[in-house]
Amino acid sequence: MIRKYTFGTPFPTDAVVLSLPAEKGPVPYLDLSREGNQVVLTRKLQPEDVLFGLGESVRGINKRGFRYVSWNSDIFSHTESTESLYASHNFLVFFGPGCLFGVYLDDPGRVSWDLGFTRSDTAVITSENGNLDLYVLEEDSLPALARSFRKLTGRSYLPPRWAFGYIQSRWGYASEAECRAVAEEHRKRDIPLDGICMDIDYMEEYKNFTWRKDAFPDLERFSRDMREEHIHLVPIIDAGIRQEEGYPPYDSGKAGDSFCKKGDGSDFTAAVWPGLCCFPDFLREDVRRWFGSLYRPLLEAGVEGFWNDMNEPSLFYTPERLEAALLRTRETASGGDYEALWSLSSAFNSLANNEEDYRSFFHHPSGTAVRHDKVHNLYGAFMTRASAEGFRRFDPDRRFLLFSRSSFIGAHRNGGVWTGDNSSWWSHLKLVLQMLPNLNLCGFLYSGCDLGGFSCNVTEDLLARFLQLGVFTPLMRNHSALHTREQEVYRFSSWEDLRSILRVRYALLPFLYSEFMKAALSDGMYFRPLAFDYPEDPRAVATEDQLLLGEGCMIAPVLEQNASGRYVYLPEDMLMIRFRSPEDYDLVPLDRGDHRISLGLREFPLFVKKNHAVLLCPGGTSTETLDDRSFTVLGRTDTAVRYDLYRDDGIDPHPVLEEHLTPVFLPAAAPSVPVPGVAISTAVL
Amino acid sequence: MIRKYTFGTPFPTDAVVLSLPAEKGPVPYLDLSREGNQVVLTRKLQPEDVLFGLGESVRGINKRGFRYVSWNSDIFSHTESTESLYASHNFLVFFGPGCLFGVYLDDPGRVSWDLGFTRSDTAVITSENGNLDLYVLEEDSLPALARSFRKLTGRSYLPPRWAFGYIQSRWGYASEAECRAVAEEHRKRDIPLDGICMDIDYMEEYKNFTWRKDAFPDLERFSRDMREEHIHLVPIIDAGIRQEEGYPPYDSGKAGDSFCKKGDGSDFTAAVWPGLCCFPDFLREDVRRWFGSLYRPLLEAGVEGFWNDMNEPSLFYTPERLEAALLRTRETASGGDYEALWSLSSAFNSLANNEEDYRSFFHHPSGTAVRHDKVHNLYGAFMTRASAEGFRRFDPDRRFLLFSRSSFIGAHRNGGVWTGDNSSWWSHLKLVLQMLPNLNLCGFLYSGCDLGGFSCNVTEDLLARFLQLGVFTPLMRNHSALHTREQEVYRFSSWEDLRSILRVRYALLPFLYSEFMKAALSDGMYFRPLAFDYPEDPRAVATEDQLLLGEGCMIAPVLEQNASGRYVYLPEDMLMIRFRSPEDYDLVPLDRGDHRISLGLREFPLFVKKNHAVLLCPGGTSTETLDDRSFTVLGRTDTAVRYDLYRDDGIDPHPVLEEHLTPVFLPAAAPSVPVPGVAISTAVL
Repeated sequence: MIRKYTFGTPFPTDAVVLSLPAEKGPVPYLDLSREGNQVVLTRKLQPEDVLFGLGESVRGINKRGFRYVSWNSDIFSHTESTESLYASHNFLVFFGPGCLFGVYLDDPGRVSWDLGFTRSDTAVITSENGNLDLYVLEEDSLPALARSFRKLTGRSYLPPRWAFGYIQSRWGYASEAECRAVAEEHRKRDIPLDGICMDIDYMEEYKNFTWRKDAFPDLERFSRDMREEHIHLVPIIDAGIRQEEGYPPYDSGKAGDSFCKKGDGSDFTAAVWPGLCCFPDFLREDVRRWFGSLYRPLLEAGVEGFWNDMNEPSLFYTPERLEAALLRTRETASGGDYEALWSLSSAFNSLANNEEDYRSFFHHPSGTAVRHDKVHNLYGAFMTRASAEGFRRFDPDRRFLLFSRSSFIGAHRNGGVWTGDNSSWWSHLKLVLQMLPNLNLCGFLYSGCDLGGFSCNVTEDLLARFLQLGVFTPLMRNHSALHTREQEVYRFSSWEDLRSILRVRYALLPFLYSEFMKAALSDGMYFRPLAFDYPEDPRAVATEDQLLLGEGCMIAPVLEQNASGRYVYLPEDMLMIRFRSPEDYDLVPLDRGDHRISLGLREFPLFVKKNHAVLLCPGGTSTETLDDRSFTVLGRTDTAVRYDLYRDDGIDPHPVLEEHLTPVFLPAAAPSVPVPGVAISTAVL
Repeated sequence: MIRKYTFGTPFPTDAVVLSLPAEKGPVPYLDLSREGNQVVLTRKLQPEDVLFGLGESVRGINKRGFRYVSWNSDIFSHTESTESLYASHNFLVFFGPGCLFGVYLDDPGRVSWDLGFTRSDTAVITSENGNLDLYVLEEDSLPALARSFRKLTGRSYLPPRWAFGYIQSRWGYASEAECRAVAEEHRKRDIPLDGICMDIDYMEEYKNFTWRKDAFPDLERFSRDMREEHIHLVPIIDAGIRQEEGYPPYDSGKAGDSFCKKGDGSDFTAAVWPGLCCFPDFLREDVRRWFGSLYRPLLEAGVEGFWNDMNEPSLFYTPERLEAALLRTRETASGGDYEALWSLSSAFNSLANNEEDYRSFFHHPSGTAVRHDKVHNLYGAFMTRASAEGFRRFDPDRRFLLFSRSSFIGAHRNGGVWTGDNSSWWSHLKLVLQMLPNLNLCGFLYSGCDLGGFSCNVTEDLLARFLQLGVFTPLMRNHSALHTREQEVYRFSSWEDLRSILRVRYALLPFLYSEFMKAALSDGMYFRPLAFDYPEDPRAVATEDQLLLGEGCMIAPVLEQNASGRYVYLPEDMLMIRFRSPEDYDLVPLDRGDHRISLGLREFPLFVKKNHAVLLCPGGTSTETLDDRSFTVLGRTDTAVRYDLYRDDGIDPHPVLEEHLTPVFLPAAAPSVPVPGVAISTAVL
């Protein structure tokens, strides 16, 4: 059951697809109070209560014990104590003895979540603006609650099948020649690859929808050549449009009066990569249509995938604030004390993403002005919407790849997300593992992180462990920043071991694609906390470093440097597949309970519940050249097992379940030594 | 066996106490090469090789896989990718199949340690200046290697016994009244306490060796009153001396020409807390004598403990560099692009601890000028030496508490260390656990971290888990920064649970003090990696989140938020004592192997090897009021067990082993339910 309560005058966020009447009575489960404009919701927590949700946010799968703030932020080097990341996903589930409900705050402004931080026994949720639709969801299980929330907010985005391939990216790829060299190194060494991301350097002076004619003289031909190699180009698009007369996107935007405005009616400008930019008022339907149409030249050049960036929106500085800071320096005496100096440094260091700047401009979604900070968290989501709508207009019969840095619930229908700029830190490897199930709960099934880490220098073992997690994330992209260590797989002496990890991805790809499709099309979750399948098992509920995957699997990646293995908790009997390559793996039946698993740097496990099957195909170096007709089927079964396989053209927006595979488990065809209790079969479809 | 090799003209660092002749032949184990001035030592690593050492540095107990730089740095918010921390400890042990040796680079300049970062199979150690004594140590075991290194570098510092009590600290305590209130809150609630740290606000305008007469009108009386409450005041002393005529420490320093100089012979100045400061040339014996004598008024006021800070030395800015940055802003046009702006921000953000500044001043240890960067890593160690020498002159018959932020090997004879400004992060809780054994290996037995975390806002559970580790660290100080959440134990609703943790510390204190003394006086280690006792057990060697403590114990703190327990690996049969309070604990015999231990937020374990004893006294609220005559003795024994107890006046510089306790284990006197195989006795001495 879903109940809706309306406070103030909510802004239409497009997050919800079900139209429900607002209830009049008191809000269940939560104590409601008002403080000025604020709406404050309070809930006493029992010691055993666990909180799931908030999608992209720091800390654990269980969000309890910390304070989070929904405020989309370009936060390059985030740590454990960062309260706001790039996205805001205001859905939270309360789960404990005799307690199961979800709350969704459909509120595009600032919302704070004190989840047992100030008082460990109290959760306090505060809507700063007090204009919101509050939804309270009740179901009899965690999966049902997740499904109910998806019914409320709509089906998750479906990417094309090639988007499940490996994508190589780096801030710094600056020419066709450089991209071709990356492609060639992969193909030459048989390292699987389906895409190359083009970061900001492909553009002319970082201007959206341009490309450097010197470096990319014939993008259409380049794209076609790459497609012959089964490699897709995936260019970046930023939010801001450079304020420059004669630059067509600016001119057409200006002609449509498409940009956000200051209080005096002039266009709001701030510096981002291209210099001073105007910011499309994505909340307007006509602006989205205009912006979506700007992708057309790239689409016509053969591009089928994009990543939308800088759309919190990130602001380097506004001219007004810069001028004020410079003025202060001119007035600062050299002999000033360090406090004066720090205040001066701080004037410069607070230029970027300054909260006052977000209060200084306006949207005009329906004629009336809406101050940006009141709807701040929508900006990236509505950019994504503009893009997706543009792609559908360009070709309604095709799935395009689209993933965004900033997002809000609702955007999950139009694209995926990556988890923003992270660091080459072990703690960020763990962080993404803990984000993934909460992203899924909020609808973002197509998601992943910058594998290897964006900033800082990766170590070889960290890259291996990142990739071993990435084998299972729908978006599998290796991405790194300018001036950091180059982290393409072939840069490392152990590149063949790293390649083996990617080869496992491709051997599993038809299986993982099917698991994804089943989750997306049934409004389910591809990644889940263990609590979702084992709510009565306190150990499963408290598990923070393992995830359920699809219908019958569990992952437990190594998250520590110099580790020779890890502990794993099995909530039921399972089969462990310990991969070294698609051809070289161990099958180990393990009983319910705690296990110490030996996992050398080349090894990573996949756990399979009893009477579920995992399908391995022979693999390949691209999704288009995979053999997905013959499978090795692995399982620990005592009955015949049906497996529902999605195998389609990979681009039709309406994928159809093609096969019901009922493998006959026969140990004879086993590629490794037969193990008692473990069933292996080969299947040809 | 220790072999010494000399390169260039090493600076006398005071690190080594054994005078050895330099060898002429090739260096064993290492390939030596020269690149310009640099001395480069290379060693091929086998897959199983493990590296211990480097004292205070980031990442794991095993240092392999990352790059570290010995360069003492004031690095407020350090992360996994920080290469240099506050101290430099150039001792590294190579341990693997058929491989066991240590290298010590007695080199006070920059040294880099690429330990399998660039190539995972190669360690490269580079002395930038190439003036050093290189020591290669060989023994037949890890503990023997540690002991041999201590023979080379001298016995570890012995603090007074009260320094094992709980110390409360916060940047911001600004008056006697405030400190008295802290003391009173502890005493009123029976929260144990032995010391209160006074951070920079006790001083007049942050000037060393002054105190604010308004806030501390009678320091001697205040100190005496506190001592009657068994509480010691522990003031901070910074490295810089404000350049101000009429301020006695500056005047006397100037009279003795005691400060570091620029190339032109004038005093080098840089801003720190008090504004522009001069920096004592601690490398000169006469300057150390002068500086050490400055502590006298505080000592005469009854102070018996100090912490030396800002002694990397930290530099906020030099007037020259500030002037240049301000000049740049005056020349920067408002319409500049963001790259010009970032360069400007960077001019301000790089003012602090700028490497060029460290190349711009000189020491004069023996008449000739030595550029600071060549001996940079000695500065804090020689400040500590100045302090300790001053204390010994003041009262040679007394141990004083002294711990320093910056250090170098050699300083371990004169004082302890804390691990510098950390953050209220779970990852920093784990980090200190991993630093402690390496600090011990390098001689720094008296050590600890800012419990609860210095910067950022602590959560209640993080503070509890920090304190549960702190129960076992020789220095047990709760310290936090201005503007962060107040983190004195009594600020939290669960303060009684937090108090129980401190009460366990005091119940264990006579035992922990004895373990410390035995380790220090035998040139052993109080904390050790598991590899030191179980070198043949690969699982023990790879264990990164458990430590051996003293002769017979092991700790395994909870390092994760919202955890209900953790996994522990036992390399042999042990007894687990699961503490909730000194009176409320479980005794659980556990066999060798892997265990999942349930550990609620109030619970923490201590593991005891068979036929070793742990002694619990009735506890108390200060070290001076402890009853250390009656003990509950816990063990898992099949023979009579002797326990060597150090019980002395706590201040004599030559502690004497007083008692050989041979408990007779009788289950009858057990304070909890008797457990088969577990022996408990009471002993009255």
